[in-house]
Amino acid sequence: MENPILKRRSVRKFKETPVSREMIDKLLEAAMAAPSACNKRPVDFYVITDEEKLQEISMAGRFTRMKAPLIILVVGNLKRALPLQLADYWIHDAAAASENILIEATALGLGSCWCGIHPQKRMMQKVSQILGLGEKQLPFSLIKIGHPDEFPEPHSGYDKSRVTFLE
Amino acid sequence: MENPILKRRSVRKFKETPVSREMIDKLLEAAMAAPSACNKRPVDFYVITDEEKLQEISMAGRFTRMKAPLIILVVGNLKRALPLQLADYWIHDAAAASENILIEATALGLGSCWCGIHPQKRMMQKVSQILGLGEKQLPFSLIKIGHPDEFPEPHSGYDKSRVTFLE
Repeated sequence: MENPILKRRSVRKFKETPVSREMIDKLLEAAMAAPSACNKRPVDFYVITDEEKLQEISMAGRFTRMKAPLIILVVGNLKRALPLQLADYWIHDAAAASENILIEATALGLGSCWCGIHPQKRMMQKVSQILGLGEKQLPFSLIKIGHPDEFPEPHSGYDKSRVTFLE
Repeated sequence: MENPILKRRSVRKFKETPVSREMIDKLLEAAMAAPSACNKRPVDFYVITDEEKLQEISMAGRFTRMKAPLIILVVGNLKRALPLQLADYWIHDAAAASENILIEATALGLGSCWCGIHPQKRMMQKVSQILGLGEKQLPFSLIKIGHPDEFPEPHSGYDKSRVTFLE
């Protein structure tokens, strides 16, 4: 199989076919296999397939409106975060979990698009309100997922100017 | 092949054998295939195999001291970041690139360990000083990589209590 890390592209057009529960479980398993600073695991997942909630949440931002049969919302849970200045490691953990979801989706033949929510306060508030999140739960990313209805070609992002060798 | 997302564990003991340039290139290619908010790509990579630099940088923190033949330092480059409150998306991008390096390392049979640097100011300053980074370059993660000399068993992090279904 082609390396899903290299194959992954943002997909914004999806078929209406639902994503099977088996695939959803694989996406969640991949998400929770991501590393977490000091193994605190301060990240929750909201799996949304309810038509009304999908629509409501998709209206939270300007770039979140494309139609998809599945959203996984990755949420920081500050109740489990590290203390003090280390608390912000939840952001690293949430991003690693998000990336794992995208790669696993690609490996399963699904399309996905990572829409950033955090640190945009208005979008975070809207999403929190729609889902009734607690005070310590911070919406991080909204990942649209489905069977793809567009197939962007993989393209290498390799850029030598970003690399320095100390050898 | 076993799914490298699920197989990945932190490895802290490495053989002395160097990591080949071909493998290093694959790690960098994977890193740069990570998504980036608005495709800004505000992330640089320092590839360190020089013995003296490896030792110096490994002393930057308490948990960064294990010996490895390769460090990839992932660095935020604020010159290419989004403006204003969106600037912090560099953190998401750097974390996604870091996670890709870990998964690709696993797929290549290498071991790796993501050591957090950002947002710990003292460690960031030390690393910046050692590498002579510019003001707009922020050390994010220090990834130790090598041929593994310990083989932690994969373990599922799946935890139902972290998942909410809205279906």
